[in-house]
Amino acid sequence: MEKFEPVVKAIDLILPKPHLGDNRAHENRIRTQLEELLNEQVSVPLWSARKLRYLPKYNYQINAIIAKDSHGWQLIDILPKDKKIPLFGLAIDLGSTSVVFYLVDFLRKEVIKTISEPNPQIVHGEDILDRILFAARGEGLNILQQEVIALFNKVIDRLLSEQGASRENLFYLSVAGNTTMCHFLMALDPSHLCKEPYLPIENSFDLIRAKEIGIKAHPLSFLYCFPNVGSYFGGDLLAGILSSKMHKKEELSMLVDVGTNAEVILGNNEWLVACAGAAGPALEGGILECGMRAQPGAIERVEIEPNTLKVHYKTIGSAPAKGLCGSGIIDLICAMFLAGIVDPTGKLVPDRDPKRMIKVKGDWAYIVAFKEETAHQQPVYITQSDIKNLIRSKGAMYTILNVVIQSVGIEFHDIEKFYVAGAFGSYIDPEKAITIGMLPDIPRDRFVGLGNAAGKGAVELLLNKDSILEIETIKQNITYLEMNVRGDFMNQLTGALFLPHTDMSRFPSVKKKLKELKK
Amino acid sequence: MEKFEPVVKAIDLILPKPHLGDNRAHENRIRTQLEELLNEQVSVPLWSARKLRYLPKYNYQINAIIAKDSHGWQLIDILPKDKKIPLFGLAIDLGSTSVVFYLVDFLRKEVIKTISEPNPQIVHGEDILDRILFAARGEGLNILQQEVIALFNKVIDRLLSEQGASRENLFYLSVAGNTTMCHFLMALDPSHLCKEPYLPIENSFDLIRAKEIGIKAHPLSFLYCFPNVGSYFGGDLLAGILSSKMHKKEELSMLVDVGTNAEVILGNNEWLVACAGAAGPALEGGILECGMRAQPGAIERVEIEPNTLKVHYKTIGSAPAKGLCGSGIIDLICAMFLAGIVDPTGKLVPDRDPKRMIKVKGDWAYIVAFKEETAHQQPVYITQSDIKNLIRSKGAMYTILNVVIQSVGIEFHDIEKFYVAGAFGSYIDPEKAITIGMLPDIPRDRFVGLGNAAGKGAVELLLNKDSILEIETIKQNITYLEMNVRGDFMNQLTGALFLPHTDMSRFPSVKKKLKELKK
Repeated sequence: MEKFEPVVKAIDLILPKPHLGDNRAHENRIRTQLEELLNEQVSVPLWSARKLRYLPKYNYQINAIIAKDSHGWQLIDILPKDKKIPLFGLAIDLGSTSVVFYLVDFLRKEVIKTISEPNPQIVHGEDILDRILFAARGEGLNILQQEVIALFNKVIDRLLSEQGASRENLFYLSVAGNTTMCHFLMALDPSHLCKEPYLPIENSFDLIRAKEIGIKAHPLSFLYCFPNVGSYFGGDLLAGILSSKMHKKEELSMLVDVGTNAEVILGNNEWLVACAGAAGPALEGGILECGMRAQPGAIERVEIEPNTLKVHYKTIGSAPAKGLCGSGIIDLICAMFLAGIVDPTGKLVPDRDPKRMIKVKGDWAYIVAFKEETAHQQPVYITQSDIKNLIRSKGAMYTILNVVIQSVGIEFHDIEKFYVAGAFGSYIDPEKAITIGMLPDIPRDRFVGLGNAAGKGAVELLLNKDSILEIETIKQNITYLEMNVRGDFMNQLTGALFLPHTDMSRFPSVKKKLKELKK
Repeated sequence: MEKFEPVVKAIDLILPKPHLGDNRAHENRIRTQLEELLNEQVSVPLWSARKLRYLPKYNYQINAIIAKDSHGWQLIDILPKDKKIPLFGLAIDLGSTSVVFYLVDFLRKEVIKTISEPNPQIVHGEDILDRILFAARGEGLNILQQEVIALFNKVIDRLLSEQGASRENLFYLSVAGNTTMCHFLMALDPSHLCKEPYLPIENSFDLIRAKEIGIKAHPLSFLYCFPNVGSYFGGDLLAGILSSKMHKKEELSMLVDVGTNAEVILGNNEWLVACAGAAGPALEGGILECGMRAQPGAIERVEIEPNTLKVHYKTIGSAPAKGLCGSGIIDLICAMFLAGIVDPTGKLVPDRDPKRMIKVKGDWAYIVAFKEETAHQQPVYITQSDIKNLIRSKGAMYTILNVVIQSVGIEFHDIEKFYVAGAFGSYIDPEKAITIGMLPDIPRDRFVGLGNAAGKGAVELLLNKDSILEIETIKQNITYLEMNVRGDFMNQLTGALFLPHTDMSRFPSVKKKLKELKK
């Protein structure tokens, strides 16, 4: 990450000593000097003003700690000039499943520790809808808020004590989450988020003091929550855009966050079009018979030799296989399609490799790993209905991309950078995703995996003081297409429910590949 | 007072109902409509955002309560459209002796109740210096703060329950006090205010939530504290300028706050020069043998027939005399001077009216009210040293005015309006004050009594939303002359220690009057 000015800084100040000809108030003395130095407005909250009583004791030579707010800077604390203390920030990717924390050292201007914790709200339902229902009952909403805040406080204490520091050394937090997670965090009623016309209570959050929602840090510590664009387009996506920098480039880019909801942004430094739609949980492996999260034992890569039909797979941590995770599933469908084990309509061809075919609850299934190879002595397989679900998800994804493209009157090959983000986005092999018709058929070197883009954006907010304004600009430049009101989605979806598509002219490289295989 | 827009308003809003084509967040829906209506920036704090959950229940027809902040307006509360609640503000003149409260009804745009309470900090010393010393000991500063806040809360509860309302109906407070009182209120260390070079901790206060310092009102209620200009030029004076409107007029005006400290502002809508200096407590009657506050029984008017030497006096409430208050003392010195009972050097002339002359502790004294006429059967008199003190005070006052005048190169007769403020300022008869050489010899119709200018300014802040900005402009336009560093003060004082002055050409009307009396 480029090195900018972070949102928290310590500045050595040698103030002119007061005398009868210059008896400005302490506050004025320090503020005017800071304003000259920073060329920005500086304010002094009451808490810090009270500490200015120490100015004479410190001989008017101080180490001033300042933090960025929406109008300029605030004086957050003062110390004697030669006393240096560690200055920390915490960037948080507030996911519904996992919460990832990035401890930022403002002096070194970098992340010094990253940890991931399960979201404690999961006890009220893995599905976010269950939590929305829970929020509506009695103290539900407050409980959901307190659970997350308790996790924050626990992690803050742990991370800071590891550094030999205390809560009071934490001066800034940034949180990127989807719209619902932000509502839980701020104790805002989420009940209209999930029903038509999908209304958030609030999309843009004022910068608040962390203590306002019970976070234990420095008394004046700020908390910045990334704004949302709509019910299905949250602050995590905005953080993703920030980290991709697509909003600053002249070239046309597309950013896709792959998950249960497919979230798409298309644009450049002049305009941005965003859209989100349900792709279904199949892409994440969620509802598959043998689906699992990306943990040790998950099959993440699969190849099938088209002639011998021999299967090669790779598991996370090279552990005995337990199931299939997102990237493994895409690989698998691709390989089965190229090997003729599944036909272009998505139907299994049982005769192609009978030794790997079984019936599961009356449904055909294809075995990837035989029980002898697995951790639990059960085969890892994919069923016909798994495949149907998957094709529906990949079709929805492609269709969403296509609707966005069409809405601005361009074609896929006009896109110069294609960013893939999301929990498993970075692990997707574009070649495979294109072959099954999930991603568009454009040169492979245009694809860039972003990793945890939301987390990176949250870190960027802390390390670059101009980010707050940048995000405002991004938000203003975004036009949001409501997928639910676009009739063309359903019309276009039908063609995308094939491998790769009914219209093969959209996938010339796949057409060519299939031709060569048939030779 | 002219009727402007107050800092708190209730606005009826009929919001467009959401649908798929317009599914903005509640916050956005209400904010954009308010911004269009007000043509100013509107923000929605978290507390109010949480209440927006009621928008659907209220059928998107609401009564929005908004309050002014430094950047625009804030949404403070929402109610169903047809529910009206009373909206109150409280303006406070935070004096070291008395605290005056003005309950403002924002709907009627006027003060509906005024009450005055003694400042509870008096138990730590009537003299503000004693309180500054008390503040330095242990929890002293916090105790001083809590005493004043407790008084505020007691008065808030009383005033609002009288109106059939509750604390939650109080949305805004404005406080005008001198620099020391502001430091006590905000718990800012006052210890350097009273010793060279007279340093305040803070002069300009951010608008804060009233609850930040323990005031019990609506959760989002604001507290505005008038900024100070220096240790001896407080927010009460700035409030006074605001209420005089001298900063908005082309004509040249002077404003004098008469008290232990004489505070002076000279200027117009382009520039302001301010100065403050110690006049001593004599003018307020404080240290006089028979001095007292302006309460029933205090002699407030005195005349002496120059030929018969017969004394006529008037007491407050026409009660039997008990002592002399500020305006009575000025009248008395003037009358004694014109009757030849005191000579131009300030010396009593015992032979002039021997029946009213007594010796008190070896000092000559002149009896104003014989013991038969008084409440306590003791004579009310003025001693030679009382008179000396008084002449020193009036001389200091005149000299301060003169230093200010000279500093900008004008003369007294250039002043078109002369505002007199302060506890007893409005009761001073300019004719008498000029005769003894306390105020300059300019046409009498240019004098305007302002009454409690600080309190009026604090009320104005609540009733005119533009005041916050106006005060910033006033503050920026003020040049403060530090009297303590001006050597010419001592040089000039000598001539002013006579009645009216050694240089009689400065007081032509007094010269003429004396001439006529001698005929």
